[in-house]
Amino acid sequence: MEIVPVPGLPEVVEGDALGALIASALEGAGLRLRDDDVVCISQKVVSKAEGMTRALAEVEPGEEAARLAAELGKDPRLVELILSETARVVRAQRGVLITETNHGLVCANAGIDSSNVPGEGTVTLLPVDPDASARRVRAELADATGARPAVIVADSFGRPWRVGQTEVAIGCAGLEPVDDWRGSRDRDGRGLAATAIAIADELAAAADLARDKSSGTPVVIVRGAGRHRIVADGPGAAALRRAADADLFR
Amino acid sequence: MEIVPVPGLPEVVEGDALGALIASALEGAGLRLRDDDVVCISQKVVSKAEGMTRALAEVEPGEEAARLAAELGKDPRLVELILSETARVVRAQRGVLITETNHGLVCANAGIDSSNVPGEGTVTLLPVDPDASARRVRAELADATGARPAVIVADSFGRPWRVGQTEVAIGCAGLEPVDDWRGSRDRDGRGLAATAIAIADELAAAADLARDKSSGTPVVIVRGAGRHRIVADGPGAAALRRAADADLFR
Repeated sequence: MEIVPVPGLPEVVEGDALGALIASALEGAGLRLRDDDVVCISQKVVSKAEGMTRALAEVEPGEEAARLAAELGKDPRLVELILSETARVVRAQRGVLITETNHGLVCANAGIDSSNVPGEGTVTLLPVDPDASARRVRAELADATGARPAVIVADSFGRPWRVGQTEVAIGCAGLEPVDDWRGSRDRDGRGLAATAIAIADELAAAADLARDKSSGTPVVIVRGAGRHRIVADGPGAAALRRAADADLFR
Repeated sequence: MEIVPVPGLPEVVEGDALGALIASALEGAGLRLRDDDVVCISQKVVSKAEGMTRALAEVEPGEEAARLAAELGKDPRLVELILSETARVVRAQRGVLITETNHGLVCANAGIDSSNVPGEGTVTLLPVDPDASARRVRAELADATGARPAVIVADSFGRPWRVGQTEVAIGCAGLEPVDDWRGSRDRDGRGLAATAIAIADELAAAADLARDKSSGTPVVIVRGAGRHRIVADGPGAAALRRAADADLFR
Protein backbone atom coordinates (compact mmCIF):
# COMPACT_ATOMS: atom_id res chain seq x y z
CA MET A 1 0.00 0.00 0.00
CA GLU A 2 1.09 3.53 -0.75
CA ILE A 3 -0.05 6.91 0.56
CA VAL A 4 0.38 9.65 -2.02
CA PRO A 5 -0.34 13.34 -1.37
CA VAL A 6 -1.78 15.18 -4.37
CA PRO A 7 -0.05 18.53 -4.90
CA GLY A 8 -1.26 21.49 -6.89
CA LEU A 9 -4.92 21.80 -5.97
CA PRO A 10 -5.91 25.49 -6.36
CA GLU A 11 -7.76 27.40 -3.61
CA VAL A 12 -11.27 25.98 -3.78
CA VAL A 13 -14.25 28.34 -3.99
CA GLU A 14 -18.03 27.93 -3.98
CA GLY A 15 -19.35 26.22 -7.08
CA ASP A 16 -16.12 24.43 -7.96
CA ALA A 17 -16.52 20.89 -9.27
CA LEU A 18 -14.07 19.36 -6.83
CA GLY A 19 -13.73 16.09 -8.75
CA ALA A 20 -12.68 17.94 -11.91
CA LEU A 21 -10.16 20.05 -9.92
CA ILE A 22 -8.67 16.91 -8.36
CA ALA A 23 -8.46 15.23 -11.78
CA SER A 24 -6.52 18.25 -13.14
CA ALA A 25 -4.19 18.29 -10.13
CA LEU A 26 -3.53 14.57 -10.60
CA GLU A 27 -2.77 15.09 -14.27
CA GLY A 28 -0.45 17.99 -13.43
CA ALA A 29 1.39 15.75 -10.97
CA GLY A 30 1.67 12.92 -13.49
CA LEU A 31 -0.52 10.66 -11.34
CA ARG A 32 -3.03 8.33 -13.01
CA LEU A 33 -6.11 7.51 -10.96
CA ARG A 34 -7.02 3.82 -10.56
CA ASP A 35 -10.26 2.07 -9.68
CA ASP A 36 -8.67 0.66 -6.53
CA ASP A 37 -7.48 4.04 -5.22
CA VAL A 38 -9.09 5.69 -2.23
CA VAL A 39 -9.19 9.47 -2.64
CA CYS A 40 -9.26 11.10 0.81
CA ILE A 41 -10.42 14.72 0.79
CA SER A 42 -10.37 17.16 3.70
CA GLN A 43 -13.82 18.29 4.73
CA LYS A 44 -12.65 21.88 4.49
CA VAL A 45 -12.35 21.97 0.69
CA VAL A 46 -15.60 20.05 0.26
CA SER A 47 -17.36 22.64 2.43
CA LYS A 48 -15.78 25.49 0.47
CA ALA A 49 -16.86 23.99 -2.88
CA GLU A 50 -20.40 23.57 -1.53
CA GLY A 51 -20.59 27.12 -0.23
CA MET A 52 -20.67 26.02 3.41
CA THR A 53 -18.72 29.06 4.59
CA ARG A 54 -20.22 31.72 6.84
CA ALA A 55 -19.07 35.22 7.80
CA LEU A 56 -19.37 35.69 11.57
CA ALA A 57 -20.19 39.38 10.95
CA GLU A 58 -23.51 38.30 9.44
CA VAL A 59 -24.56 36.10 12.36
CA GLU A 60 -27.01 37.43 14.99
CA PRO A 61 -26.50 35.46 18.22
CA GLY A 62 -29.65 34.41 20.04
CA GLU A 63 -30.17 34.24 23.79
CA GLU A 64 -28.93 30.67 24.34
CA ALA A 65 -25.82 31.31 22.22
CA ALA A 66 -25.04 34.51 24.17
CA ARG A 67 -25.38 32.72 27.51
CA LEU A 68 -23.28 29.71 26.46
CA ALA A 69 -20.65 31.93 24.83
CA ALA A 70 -20.23 33.94 28.03
CA GLU A 71 -19.91 30.71 30.03
CA LEU A 72 -17.31 29.23 27.68
CA GLY A 73 -15.41 32.39 26.71
CA LYS A 74 -16.31 31.92 23.03
CA ASP A 75 -17.53 34.30 20.32
CA PRO A 76 -21.36 34.36 20.63
CA ARG A 77 -21.73 34.45 16.84
CA LEU A 78 -19.65 31.28 16.55
CA VAL A 79 -21.73 29.62 19.27
CA GLU A 80 -24.92 30.62 17.42
CA LEU A 81 -23.62 28.89 14.29
CA ILE A 82 -22.59 25.83 16.30
CA LEU A 83 -26.05 25.55 17.86
CA SER A 84 -27.68 25.87 14.44
CA GLU A 85 -25.74 22.76 13.37
CA THR A 86 -26.41 20.89 16.60
CA ALA A 87 -28.98 18.24 17.48
CA ARG A 88 -27.74 17.79 21.08
CA VAL A 89 -25.12 19.42 23.29
CA VAL A 90 -22.88 16.65 24.65
CA ARG A 91 -20.54 18.75 26.83
CA ALA A 92 -20.16 22.48 27.43
CA GLN A 93 -17.43 23.18 29.92
CA ARG A 94 -13.89 24.50 30.29
CA GLY A 95 -14.12 26.44 27.01
CA VAL A 96 -15.03 23.33 25.02
CA LEU A 97 -18.34 22.78 23.27
CA ILE A 98 -18.89 19.21 22.08
CA THR A 99 -22.13 18.49 20.28
CA GLU A 100 -23.87 15.90 18.22
CA THR A 101 -24.45 17.50 14.83
CA ASN A 102 -27.65 17.28 12.84
CA HIS A 103 -25.99 14.42 10.91
CA GLY A 104 -25.30 12.47 14.12
CA LEU A 105 -21.55 13.18 14.32
CA VAL A 106 -20.14 13.91 17.79
CA CYS A 107 -17.33 16.48 17.67
CA ALA A 108 -16.08 19.80 18.98
CA ASN A 109 -17.89 22.93 17.78
CA ALA A 110 -20.20 20.92 15.50
CA GLY A 111 -17.23 20.65 13.12
CA ILE A 112 -17.09 24.42 12.53
CA ASP A 113 -13.55 25.65 11.94
CA SER A 114 -11.76 28.82 10.90
CA SER A 115 -8.24 27.60 10.10
CA ASN A 116 -7.25 27.65 6.42
CA VAL A 117 -10.42 29.58 5.53
CA PRO A 118 -9.67 32.82 3.67
CA GLY A 119 -11.32 35.97 4.98
CA GLU A 120 -11.14 37.32 8.52
CA GLY A 121 -14.02 36.02 10.61
CA THR A 122 -15.04 33.40 8.07
CA VAL A 123 -15.65 29.80 9.10
CA THR A 124 -16.63 26.55 7.40
CA LEU A 125 -19.55 24.37 8.43
CA LEU A 126 -19.56 20.65 7.68
CA PRO A 127 -21.18 19.61 4.38
CA VAL A 128 -24.95 19.11 4.72
CA ASP A 129 -24.66 15.46 3.61
CA PRO A 130 -21.01 14.30 3.48
CA ASP A 131 -21.93 10.93 1.95
CA ALA A 132 -23.69 12.75 -0.89
CA SER A 133 -20.57 14.94 -1.25
CA ALA A 134 -18.40 11.83 -1.58
CA ARG A 135 -20.77 10.33 -4.16
CA ARG A 136 -20.77 13.55 -6.19
CA VAL A 137 -16.97 13.86 -6.21
CA ARG A 138 -16.72 10.19 -7.14
CA ALA A 139 -19.01 10.72 -10.14
CA GLU A 140 -17.03 13.81 -11.18
CA LEU A 141 -13.76 11.88 -10.93
CA ALA A 142 -15.24 9.09 -13.06
CA ASP A 143 -16.36 11.61 -15.69
CA ALA A 144 -12.96 13.30 -15.77
CA THR A 145 -10.67 10.27 -15.59
CA GLY A 146 -12.64 7.13 -16.48
CA ALA A 147 -11.60 5.56 -13.15
CA ARG A 148 -14.07 4.94 -10.32
CA PRO A 149 -11.99 5.14 -7.13
CA ALA A 150 -13.45 5.19 -3.63
CA VAL A 151 -13.83 8.67 -2.11
CA ILE A 152 -13.64 9.66 1.56
CA VAL A 153 -14.53 13.04 3.05
CA ALA A 154 -12.42 13.30 6.20
CA ASP A 155 -12.22 15.52 9.26
CA SER A 156 -10.11 15.53 12.44
CA PHE A 157 -12.11 14.65 15.56
CA GLY A 158 -11.03 14.42 19.18
CA ARG A 159 -12.10 11.43 21.20
CA PRO A 160 -12.66 10.59 24.86
CA TRP A 161 -9.88 9.05 26.94
CA ARG A 162 -7.07 9.71 24.50
CA VAL A 163 -4.96 12.77 23.75
CA GLY A 164 -5.02 14.31 20.29
CA GLN A 165 -7.25 14.14 17.28
CA THR A 166 -7.37 11.55 14.54
CA GLU A 167 -8.82 11.92 11.08
CA VAL A 168 -12.10 10.04 10.55
CA ALA A 169 -14.41 9.50 7.58
CA ILE A 170 -17.50 11.70 7.77
CA GLY A 171 -18.53 10.72 4.25
CA CYS A 172 -17.58 8.01 1.79
CA ALA A 173 -18.59 6.36 -1.48
CA GLY A 174 -17.35 3.24 -3.25
CA LEU A 175 -16.10 1.73 -0.02
CA GLU A 176 -17.32 -0.82 2.50
CA PRO A 177 -16.76 1.38 5.59
CA VAL A 178 -16.75 -1.47 8.12
CA ASP A 179 -14.84 -4.72 7.63
CA ASP A 180 -16.98 -7.06 9.69
CA TRP A 181 -15.24 -10.21 10.89
CA ARG A 182 -17.90 -11.07 13.43
CA GLY A 183 -18.91 -14.68 12.89
CA SER A 184 -15.57 -15.45 11.21
CA ARG A 185 -12.93 -17.75 12.69
CA ASP A 186 -9.29 -17.15 13.56
CA ARG A 187 -6.40 -19.36 12.44
CA ASP A 188 -7.20 -21.84 15.20
CA GLY A 189 -10.89 -21.98 14.35
CA ARG A 190 -12.04 -19.83 17.26
CA GLY A 191 -14.66 -17.15 16.68
CA LEU A 192 -13.54 -13.54 16.29
CA ALA A 193 -16.23 -12.34 18.65
CA ALA A 194 -16.21 -8.57 18.34
CA THR A 195 -14.00 -7.68 15.43
CA ALA A 196 -15.54 -5.11 13.13
CA ILE A 197 -12.90 -2.78 11.81
CA ALA A 198 -13.74 0.80 10.90
CA ILE A 199 -11.80 0.67 7.63
CA ALA A 200 -12.99 4.07 6.41
CA ASP A 201 -11.67 5.73 9.58
CA GLU A 202 -8.36 3.86 9.32
CA LEU A 203 -8.01 4.98 5.70
CA ALA A 204 -8.72 8.59 6.70
CA ALA A 205 -6.10 8.34 9.46
CA ALA A 206 -3.54 6.84 7.06
CA ALA A 207 -4.12 9.65 4.57
CA ASP A 208 -3.68 12.27 7.28
CA LEU A 209 -0.11 11.04 7.88
CA ALA A 210 0.86 12.29 4.42
CA ARG A 211 -0.66 15.71 5.02
CA ASP A 212 1.06 18.76 6.42
CA LYS A 213 -1.51 20.77 8.39
CA SER A 214 0.06 24.10 7.48
CA SER A 215 0.77 23.42 3.81
CA GLY A 216 -2.71 22.80 2.53
CA THR A 217 -2.58 19.30 1.06
CA PRO A 218 -6.29 18.55 1.18
CA VAL A 219 -6.24 15.53 -1.14
CA VAL A 220 -4.32 12.31 -0.45
CA ILE A 221 -4.61 9.00 -2.29
CA VAL A 222 -4.34 5.66 -0.53
CA ARG A 223 -3.32 3.17 -3.17
CA GLY A 224 -3.57 -0.60 -2.86
CA ALA A 225 -6.47 -0.81 -0.41
CA GLY A 226 -8.61 -2.22 -3.20
CA ARG A 227 -9.84 -5.07 -1.01
CA HIS A 228 -12.27 -2.65 0.64
CA ARG A 229 -13.38 -0.86 -2.51
CA ILE A 230 -16.82 -1.63 -3.95
CA VAL A 231 -18.30 -0.75 -7.34
CA ALA A 232 -21.54 0.64 -5.89
CA ASP A 233 -21.43 3.78 -3.77
CA GLY A 234 -22.42 1.66 -0.76
CA PRO A 235 -23.79 2.62 2.65
CA GLY A 236 -21.47 5.59 3.16
CA ALA A 237 -19.98 6.80 6.41
CA ALA A 238 -23.50 6.96 7.86
CA ALA A 239 -22.82 3.29 8.67
CA LEU A 240 -20.09 4.43 11.10
CA ARG A 241 -22.45 6.52 13.24
CA ARG A 242 -23.48 4.42 16.18
CA ALA A 243 -27.22 4.49 16.82
CA ALA A 244 -27.99 6.06 20.21
CA ASP A 245 -29.61 2.87 21.50
CA ALA A 246 -26.56 0.75 20.56
CA ASP A 247 -24.09 3.12 22.20
CA LEU A 248 -23.07 2.34 25.77
CA PHE A 249 -21.64 5.83 26.15
CA ARG A 250 -24.76 8.00 25.91
CA MET B 1 4.73 6.70 2.30
CA GLU B 2 4.42 2.94 2.04
CA ILE B 3 2.77 0.33 4.23
CA VAL B 4 4.53 -3.02 4.04
CA PRO B 5 3.32 -6.18 5.81
CA VAL B 6 6.16 -8.39 7.08
CA PRO B 7 5.54 -12.06 6.21
CA GLY B 8 7.12 -15.12 7.74
CA LEU B 9 7.08 -14.41 11.48
CA PRO B 10 6.93 -17.77 13.29
CA GLU B 11 4.40 -18.51 16.05
CA VAL B 12 5.72 -16.46 18.99
CA VAL B 13 6.16 -18.14 22.38
CA GLU B 14 7.17 -16.98 25.85
CA GLY B 15 10.79 -15.89 26.08
CA ASP B 16 11.19 -15.10 22.39
CA ALA B 17 13.26 -12.00 21.58
CA LEU B 18 10.65 -10.44 19.32
CA GLY B 19 13.07 -7.93 17.79
CA ALA B 20 15.41 -10.71 16.67
CA LEU B 21 12.48 -12.70 15.22
CA ILE B 22 11.28 -9.65 13.29
CA ALA B 23 14.81 -8.99 12.01
CA SER B 24 14.98 -12.59 10.70
CA ALA B 25 11.55 -12.34 9.08
CA LEU B 26 12.61 -9.08 7.39
CA GLU B 27 15.78 -10.69 6.10
CA GLY B 28 13.82 -13.69 4.84
CA ALA B 29 11.49 -11.32 2.98
CA GLY B 30 14.39 -9.36 1.49
CA LEU B 31 13.37 -6.20 3.39
CA ARG B 32 16.05 -3.93 4.82
CA LEU B 33 15.04 -1.99 7.93
CA ARG B 34 15.65 1.79 7.92
CA ASP B 35 15.98 4.36 10.68
CA ASP B 36 12.89 6.15 9.42
CA ASP B 37 10.67 3.07 9.41
CA VAL B 38 7.89 2.62 11.93
CA VAL B 39 7.53 -1.03 12.93
CA CYS B 40 3.94 -1.66 14.09
CA ILE B 41 3.50 -4.83 16.11
CA SER B 42 0.22 -6.40 17.25
CA GLN B 43 -0.12 -6.48 21.02
CA LYS B 44 -0.93 -10.17 20.80
CA VAL B 45 2.57 -11.30 19.81
CA VAL B 46 4.18 -8.93 22.32
CA SER B 47 2.02 -10.44 25.06
CA LYS B 48 2.92 -13.97 23.94
CA ALA B 49 6.65 -13.21 23.94
CA GLU B 50 6.33 -11.72 27.42
CA GLY B 51 4.41 -14.71 28.77
CA MET B 52 1.22 -12.70 29.26
CA THR B 53 -1.01 -15.67 28.43
CA ARG B 54 -3.31 -17.27 30.96
CA ALA B 55 -5.23 -20.54 30.98
CA LEU B 56 -8.81 -19.95 32.11
CA ALA B 57 -8.78 -23.41 33.72
CA GLU B 58 -6.32 -22.11 36.30
CA VAL B 59 -8.38 -19.06 37.27
CA GLU B 60 -10.52 -19.11 40.42
CA PRO B 61 -13.29 -16.53 40.05
CA GLY B 62 -14.04 -14.39 43.11
CA GLU B 63 -17.43 -13.17 44.26
CA GLU B 64 -17.51 -9.92 42.27
CA ALA B 65 -16.42 -11.71 39.08
CA ALA B 66 -19.10 -14.36 39.55
CA ARG B 67 -21.80 -11.72 40.04
CA LEU B 68 -20.73 -9.63 37.06
CA ALA B 69 -20.28 -12.69 34.84
CA ALA B 70 -23.84 -13.82 35.58
CA GLU B 71 -25.13 -10.34 34.82
CA LEU B 72 -23.24 -10.09 31.53
CA GLY B 73 -23.43 -13.72 30.37
CA LYS B 74 -19.65 -14.05 30.39
CA ASP B 75 -17.27 -16.75 31.65
CA PRO B 76 -16.64 -15.92 35.35
CA ARG B 77 -12.96 -16.92 35.01
CA LEU B 78 -12.55 -14.44 32.15
CA VAL B 79 -14.27 -11.73 34.21
CA GLU B 80 -11.95 -12.51 37.14
CA LEU B 81 -8.94 -11.96 34.85
CA ILE B 82 -10.46 -8.76 33.47
CA LEU B 83 -11.02 -7.37 36.97
CA SER B 84 -7.45 -8.24 37.97
CA GLU B 85 -6.27 -5.99 35.09
CA THR B 86 -8.79 -3.24 35.86
CA ALA B 87 -8.44 0.02 37.79
CA ARG B 88 -12.05 1.13 37.17
CA VAL B 89 -15.13 -0.37 35.55
CA VAL B 90 -16.39 2.13 32.97
CA ARG B 91 -19.47 0.24 31.71
CA ALA B 92 -20.90 -3.19 32.43
CA GLN B 93 -24.10 -3.77 30.50
CA ARG B 94 -25.58 -5.64 27.54
CA GLY B 95 -22.83 -8.27 27.65
CA VAL B 96 -20.07 -5.68 27.32
CA LEU B 97 -17.47 -4.95 29.99
CA ILE B 98 -15.47 -1.78 29.37
CA THR B 99 -12.82 -0.91 31.90
CA GLU B 100 -9.90 1.37 32.49
CA THR B 101 -6.89 -0.89 32.80
CA ASN B 102 -4.16 -0.56 35.38
CA HIS B 103 -2.15 1.29 32.69
CA GLY B 104 -4.96 3.82 32.16
CA LEU B 105 -6.22 2.44 28.84
CA VAL B 106 -10.00 2.37 28.35
CA CYS B 107 -11.12 -0.66 26.34
CA ALA B 108 -13.36 -3.72 26.25
CA ASN B 109 -12.43 -6.62 28.56
CA ALA B 110 -9.28 -4.82 29.79
CA GLY B 111 -7.70 -5.81 26.46
CA ILE B 112 -7.96 -9.54 27.18
CA ASP B 113 -8.53 -11.59 24.06
CA SER B 114 -8.65 -15.22 22.98
CA SER B 115 -8.50 -15.00 19.18
CA ASN B 116 -5.27 -16.20 17.55
CA VAL B 117 -4.04 -17.60 20.88
CA PRO B 118 -3.12 -21.29 20.66
CA GLY B 119 -4.59 -23.59 23.29
CA GLU B 120 -8.28 -23.99 24.13
CA GLY B 121 -9.29 -21.62 26.94
CA THR B 122 -6.08 -19.60 26.73
CA VAL B 123 -6.18 -15.82 26.58
CA THR B 124 -3.67 -12.99 26.34
CA LEU B 125 -3.47 -10.07 28.74
CA LEU B 126 -1.98 -6.75 27.63
CA PRO B 127 1.76 -6.29 28.26
CA VAL B 128 2.47 -4.95 31.75
CA ASP B 129 4.20 -1.86 30.32
CA PRO B 130 3.65 -1.57 26.55
CA ASP B 131 6.04 1.41 26.25
CA ALA B 132 8.79 -0.68 27.85
CA SER B 133 7.91 -3.49 25.41
CA ALA B 134 8.33 -1.09 22.47
CA ARG B 135 11.67 0.14 23.83
CA ARG B 136 12.91 -3.41 24.28
CA VAL B 137 11.91 -4.51 20.76
CA ARG B 138 13.50 -1.34 19.39
CA ALA B 139 16.79 -2.14 21.12
CA GLU B 140 16.65 -5.74 19.85
CA LEU B 141 16.01 -4.52 16.31
CA ALA B 142 18.97 -2.14 16.58
CA ASP B 143 21.20 -4.98 17.80
CA ALA B 144 20.10 -7.29 15.00
CA THR B 145 19.98 -4.85 12.08
CA GLY B 146 21.96 -1.72 12.96
CA ALA B 147 18.88 0.41 12.20
CA ARG B 148 16.94 2.24 14.90
CA PRO B 149 13.36 2.47 13.60
CA ALA B 150 10.40 3.62 15.66
CA VAL B 151 8.34 0.82 17.22
CA ILE B 152 4.61 0.81 18.00
CA VAL B 153 2.74 -1.81 20.00
CA ALA B 154 -0.84 -1.68 18.67
CA ASP B 155 -4.22 -3.00 19.65
CA SER B 156 -7.77 -2.63 18.27
CA PHE B 157 -10.04 -0.57 20.52
CA GLY B 158 -13.68 0.36 20.16
CA ARG B 159 -14.72 3.93 20.76
CA PRO B 160 -17.86 5.78 21.77
CA TRP B 161 -20.23 7.21 19.14
CA ARG B 162 -18.72 5.37 16.20
CA VAL B 163 -19.17 1.86 14.86
CA GLY B 164 -16.20 -0.49 14.65
CA GLN B 165 -12.75 -0.65 16.13
CA THR B 166 -9.60 1.11 15.04
CA GLU B 167 -6.05 0.16 15.85
CA VAL B 168 -4.35 2.47 18.36
CA ALA B 169 -0.85 2.68 19.83
CA ILE B 170 -0.74 1.28 23.37
CA GLY B 171 3.06 1.52 23.43
CA CYS B 172 5.72 3.24 21.35
CA ALA B 173 9.40 4.15 21.25
CA GLY B 174 11.42 6.36 18.92
CA LEU B 175 8.36 8.36 17.96
CA GLU B 176 6.79 11.68 18.93
CA PRO B 177 3.30 10.29 19.57
CA VAL B 178 1.50 13.65 19.29
CA ASP B 179 2.15 16.19 16.54
CA ASP B 180 1.23 19.37 18.34
CA TRP B 181 0.33 22.30 16.11
CA ARG B 182 -1.24 24.33 18.91
CA GLY B 183 0.29 27.79 18.81
CA SER B 184 1.20 27.40 15.13
CA ARG B 185 -0.41 29.41 12.35
CA ASP B 186 -2.25 28.32 9.23
CA ARG B 187 -1.45 29.52 5.70
CA ASP B 188 -3.34 32.75 6.35
CA GLY B 189 -1.59 33.42 9.64
CA ARG B 190 -4.50 32.38 11.85
CA GLY B 191 -3.85 30.25 14.91
CA LEU B 192 -4.52 26.52 14.69
CA ALA B 193 -6.33 26.54 18.01
CA ALA B 194 -6.86 22.92 18.88
CA THR B 195 -4.83 20.84 16.47
CA ALA B 196 -2.80 18.15 18.16
CA ILE B 197 -2.68 15.05 16.02
CA ALA B 198 -2.36 11.61 17.57
CA ILE B 199 0.28 10.48 15.07
CA ALA B 200 1.03 7.20 16.86
CA ASP B 201 -2.65 6.19 16.65
CA GLU B 202 -2.85 7.20 12.98
CA LEU B 203 0.27 5.13 12.25
CA ALA B 204 -1.25 2.14 14.06
CA ALA B 205 -4.46 2.56 12.03
CA ALA B 206 -2.51 2.81 8.77
CA ALA B 207 -0.58 -0.37 9.57
CA ASP B 208 -3.80 -2.22 10.35
CA LEU B 209 -5.00 -1.65 6.77
CA ALA B 210 -2.23 -3.92 5.51
CA ARG B 211 -3.12 -6.67 7.95
CA ASP B 212 -5.50 -9.55 7.39
CA LYS B 213 -7.15 -10.37 10.73
CA SER B 214 -7.37 -14.08 9.95
CA SER B 215 -3.94 -14.57 8.40
CA GLY B 216 -1.70 -13.61 11.28
CA THR B 217 0.36 -10.71 9.95
CA PRO B 218 1.33 -9.20 13.29
CA VAL B 219 4.12 -6.96 12.00
CA VAL B 220 3.67 -4.16 9.48
CA ILE B 221 6.16 -1.45 8.54
CA VAL B 222 5.11 2.10 7.75
CA ARG B 223 7.89 3.55 5.63
CA GLY B 224 8.41 7.24 4.97
CA ALA B 225 6.87 8.69 8.13
CA GLY B 226 10.34 9.74 9.23
CA ARG B 227 9.15 13.24 10.08
CA HIS B 228 7.70 11.91 13.34
CA ARG B 229 10.59 9.62 14.24
CA ILE B 230 12.97 10.67 17.02
CA VAL B 231 16.34 9.26 18.01
CA ALA B 232 15.49 9.00 21.71
CA ASP B 233 12.81 6.56 22.83
CA GLY B 234 10.65 9.55 23.78
CA PRO B 235 7.56 9.81 25.99
CA GLY B 236 5.89 6.67 24.66
CA ALA B 237 2.19 6.07 24.18
CA ALA B 238 1.67 7.03 27.83
CA ALA B 239 1.50 10.56 26.39
CA LEU B 240 -1.71 9.55 24.57
CA ARG B 241 -3.59 8.63 27.75
CA ARG B 242 -5.67 11.59 28.74
CA ALA B 243 -5.38 12.47 32.42
CA ALA B 244 -8.71 12.05 34.20
CA ASP B 245 -8.86 15.73 35.15
CA ALA B 246 -8.31 16.82 31.53
CA ASP B 247 -10.97 14.52 30.13
CA LEU B 248 -14.43 15.97 29.66
CA PHE B 249 -15.87 12.48 29.26
CA ARG B 250 -15.33 11.04 32.75
